[in-house]
Amino acid sequence: MHETPASLICTVDVVLLTLQEGALAVLLQRREREPFKAAPALPGGYIHVDEDAGAAAAAVRVLRDKTGIVSPYLEQLATFSGPVRDPRGWSVSIVYYALLPGNALPADALLAPVDRLPQLPFDHAAIVARAVDRVRTKSQYSSLPVYLCGERFTLPQLQGVYEAVLGEPVNKVSFRRKVEELGMLEPIEGELSSGAANRPAQLYRLRKAFRQTLSITGRGLNGRS
Amino acid sequence: MHETPASLICTVDVVLLTLQEGALAVLLQRREREPFKAAPALPGGYIHVDEDAGAAAAAVRVLRDKTGIVSPYLEQLATFSGPVRDPRGWSVSIVYYALLPGNALPADALLAPVDRLPQLPFDHAAIVARAVDRVRTKSQYSSLPVYLCGERFTLPQLQGVYEAVLGEPVNKVSFRRKVEELGMLEPIEGELSSGAANRPAQLYRLRKAFRQTLSITGRGLNGRS
Repeated sequence: MHETPASLICTVDVVLLTLQEGALAVLLQRREREPFKAAPALPGGYIHVDEDAGAAAAAVRVLRDKTGIVSPYLEQLATFSGPVRDPRGWSVSIVYYALLPGNALPADALLAPVDRLPQLPFDHAAIVARAVDRVRTKSQYSSLPVYLCGERFTLPQLQGVYEAVLGEPVNKVSFRRKVEELGMLEPIEGELSSGAANRPAQLYRLRKAFRQTLSITGRGLNGRS
Repeated sequence: MHETPASLICTVDVVLLTLQEGALAVLLQRREREPFKAAPALPGGYIHVDEDAGAAAAAVRVLRDKTGIVSPYLEQLATFSGPVRDPRGWSVSIVYYALLPGNALPADALLAPVDRLPQLPFDHAAIVARAVDRVRTKSQYSSLPVYLCGERFTLPQLQGVYEAVLGEPVNKVSFRRKVEELGMLEPIEGELSSGAANRPAQLYRLRKAFRQTLSITGRGLNGRS
């Protein structure tokens, strides 16, 4: 028996997470065409076999062309597939996710809190849930949430970001110990935060070596170690 | 502009890992057709849009039809894609992996140690390397290697399996503490191993609740906690 390639739809979708009013939010975009024209959905599109070097390159292109956003960090989440998730037919979506600080997004970006999503087409609600789960699990053991911060931040600000991602309070002592273990931060010499009522706090930034990679520790937050 | 689905090849491939002579090995199969006819490769095949409920179902079908193996555990590894990985054109491979004890495989199964692979077609060598990396990382924090054991095993046997997967010795005290934390094993009442020169050891099995799922701990092996 000679097999031929199946005729199916192959797309990439991007889950871009950020913080909005202290809570984890996802970037949505109104669909330009059918199916589900005008509905808010994850930015996505077909792979272009004549120009894309791979699915990751397709995700970078789709995000840039549809939203103007260039993300420094784009990781494969998972691939979703089946006969019913897209009314056009049997479909495959290779999904990537990224974390960006709010000030890296266009001012008119359409955001929705991940815990109160509007109705989304396809299986996009399940995809967002999977991305949030991945980010929360990874944040227990890594520097991932740092990508939601601006370039300079205090330790209390970073702790607030971890708490927003995890959706629960974090013990300050465990948090400081973990940051120390990850070895990913450096104090910015002579730079203190200002404007707060209490005494100014040291400002930190991500060490250069960690700007494109994750730092991982075996010690989780929230008593899991 | 109206976009149409890209014409590309979409397949599933399966990385089935087992132990052979105390080392991690991968199941290979000689290819039945071009390209790379007769070369040893990962079992794989096209998605069948008329029968597969999703890529995972396609992987189960391909593994069963091509090797006769029905794996109780099949997890998505990642999707590999691009214009050059397959000589037939722009291709997507959604890859799944599984761990099985050696006695669950056909006697004539073609196995290769993961650290000494033969030359493999496509990007299969990179896919195997990614699977091994995933399994080693996960094994630090979970019950994953238990799937390489038979139904009944002693703690020293299970420690040996962890050591084979991780490719390095494991501290006995850390190992026992971790197994305790995972809470995944139960002693088989009245059952002791026999045949060894030293005194018989208690036999264990995986608790029923853990047979389809992983147990995860925050405490890694090898000093990472």
